[in-house]
Amino acid sequence: MVFTQVTVMGLGPMGRSLAGALLKKGHSVTLWNRSPGKSDELISLGGVLAPTVAEAASASSLIVICVLNYDAVRSIVEQSGDTLRGKTLVNLTGGTPSAAREMAKWASQAGIDYLDGSIIVPAIGEPSGVILYSGSESAYKSYHSTLMNLVGTSTFLSTDPGRASAFDIALLDIFWTAMSGYIHALALADAEQIPVTSLVPYARDIVGMIPDIMSEFANQFDSGHYPGQESNLHSTAAVMQNIITASRESGIDVSIMSEVKALVDKAVELGYGAQDFSRLAEIIRQGSRVKGA
Amino acid sequence: MVFTQVTVMGLGPMGRSLAGALLKKGHSVTLWNRSPGKSDELISLGGVLAPTVAEAASASSLIVICVLNYDAVRSIVEQSGDTLRGKTLVNLTGGTPSAAREMAKWASQAGIDYLDGSIIVPAIGEPSGVILYSGSESAYKSYHSTLMNLVGTSTFLSTDPGRASAFDIALLDIFWTAMSGYIHALALADAEQIPVTSLVPYARDIVGMIPDIMSEFANQFDSGHYPGQESNLHSTAAVMQNIITASRESGIDVSIMSEVKALVDKAVELGYGAQDFSRLAEIIRQGSRVKGA
Repeated sequence: MVFTQVTVMGLGPMGRSLAGALLKKGHSVTLWNRSPGKSDELISLGGVLAPTVAEAASASSLIVICVLNYDAVRSIVEQSGDTLRGKTLVNLTGGTPSAAREMAKWASQAGIDYLDGSIIVPAIGEPSGVILYSGSESAYKSYHSTLMNLVGTSTFLSTDPGRASAFDIALLDIFWTAMSGYIHALALADAEQIPVTSLVPYARDIVGMIPDIMSEFANQFDSGHYPGQESNLHSTAAVMQNIITASRESGIDVSIMSEVKALVDKAVELGYGAQDFSRLAEIIRQGSRVKGA
Repeated sequence: MVFTQVTVMGLGPMGRSLAGALLKKGHSVTLWNRSPGKSDELISLGGVLAPTVAEAASASSLIVICVLNYDAVRSIVEQSGDTLRGKTLVNLTGGTPSAAREMAKWASQAGIDYLDGSIIVPAIGEPSGVILYSGSESAYKSYHSTLMNLVGTSTFLSTDPGRASAFDIALLDIFWTAMSGYIHALALADAEQIPVTSLVPYARDIVGMIPDIMSEFANQFDSGHYPGQESNLHSTAAVMQNIITASRESGIDVSIMSEVKALVDKAVELGYGAQDFSRLAEIIRQGSRVKGA
C-alpha cells in the first residue's frame, strides 16, 4: 500500500481529527491553518506545518479542506495563486448544495479536480464514521484508499457536486429539528417538576420507534399513497393541541410546535385529515414535486 | 393466578388491542363502545358486549377506558350513574396533565379509585410495549398483575395523577417534532431530485446518534453547565442558516426551522453563543425554573 502525501487545510476540531486520522494511518501530512497554535499535537504525530496556503498547496497533490464555511474556503483557495492547478481538492466544509455547485464551477475554471464531501457521522478515524462525496468521480477513484482512512463508510453519490451537501442538509434538518423537540420536552418536564434525567430512558424508547416509521413515511411519499391506518392527521392535530395546551399551562414557549400544528391544520383544511402525517411532505414541497401525485 | 374480570370501554384501534390482549391472557372481558360493530372479533375471542355504560360498569370491579379524549371520558362516566362507585377506573386516554388531575378530582368526589395511564410505546400485548401510570397507588397495586398483561413494561410514577400524562406529552413532543423535521427533509430531498427512500439508511444513522446526545443534554440541563465543546449555539445557527437557505433555494416552506433558528438567535443575543444547544431549554422555560442556574 502506498501512503499518499496529503495537505490538510483548516485545523478546527474537525480538521485536526481528519489530519490525525491520516497521520495515524501512515500518511505524510502537511498542515495549514489561518491562525497558529492548533497544530502542536499533530506535529508530534509527524505532521509538517506550512507557513502559507501556497506552500501547503504545493506540498501535495491531494488537498483536504475543512473550515467554517464556503466563504472561508473561497478566501483560502484564492490565496493559493496557481499552486492548486492540476491538483485534487476535497472540500469537507459544511454548506448548501448551491454553494458546492458554485465551488465546483470555480474549481473547474481554475483547473482543479474538485470533490465535495459531507461528513454525515463525524466519527473520524472510526468504523462508524460516514462521509458522502459528490463531484469529480475520477478524484474519488484516484484517492479512494486515502479517503477510506478517514471514516468507516465513504460513499460516492453523484457527479452533481451539490448532491452530498443536499443529503447533508436534509440529514441536519432531521437532526436539529429533532433536537429542538427534545429541548422543548426537557423544559416541559422541568416545568412539571419531573427530573429531566428520568425522561431519558423513555425518550430512548420513543427514538427507537422512529427508524421504522421513517421507512414507512418515505415509502408513502414515494408512492403518493397515505392510507392513514395507524394514525392520521386528525388524530395528530389533537395530540399536538394537547402538547400546546400543556405547554401554555406551564408557561412554556410554543413557537415551534405551533408552526408544526399550523402545517397539520392546513393539510386538514385541504381535506387530508384521514391521511398519514407523511402527506405533509407534499404540502411543504408546494406542488412542485418531481414525481408522484 | 386469578384472572380478573375486566370491563373495557372504547373500542377504537387501541381499545380493541387492549381488550384483545386481556382476552388472550385469559381474562373475562366485558366490552362497551359508543357505536356498535367494533366488537365482532373480540366477541369471537370470548368478550361479552354490554348494551349500556351502566351495565358495562356493573360487570367488573376494574374498568379500563381508552377513547378519543378526556371530554369523551367525562361524557361516558357521567352516563354510568352510580355504577362506578367503589370501583377502579384506569384511564388510558391521551390528554394533558391538568385534564388528568381534573378527572382524578371528579373521580374522588364520585367515590371512584382513579388510575391515570399513558400508553408510551403502543405495542399492546407485546414485551416492547410501555405504559406509565400515576394517581391511585392502591389501584395500581391491586391490579398490577392484570395491567402487566397489557404491555411488557408497566411503571407507576407518582401519586400526582398528572405525572404519567406529563411524561406522555413530553415524549409526544419529541416524537412529533422529530417527525416534522423528517417530512421536511423528505420534501427537501425530493426538491433536490434525491429518491427519498435513498435518504432513509443515512437518516437511520443520524437517529442512531440521538440517544447519547439526549443523555448528555439532560445532564447539562440538570447541572446548569453547558460547556459547548463539541458544538455550540454559534455553529448551530450557521448550520440552521444553511438549512433555511437551501430550503428557500428549492422553494420549500421554512416555517418550522425558522422558529427553531429564531430561538437559537435569541440565545446567541443573550450571550450564550459559546454554550451547548441544550441551553435553549432554559430559555424555553422562561426563567421560571425549578432547579439549576
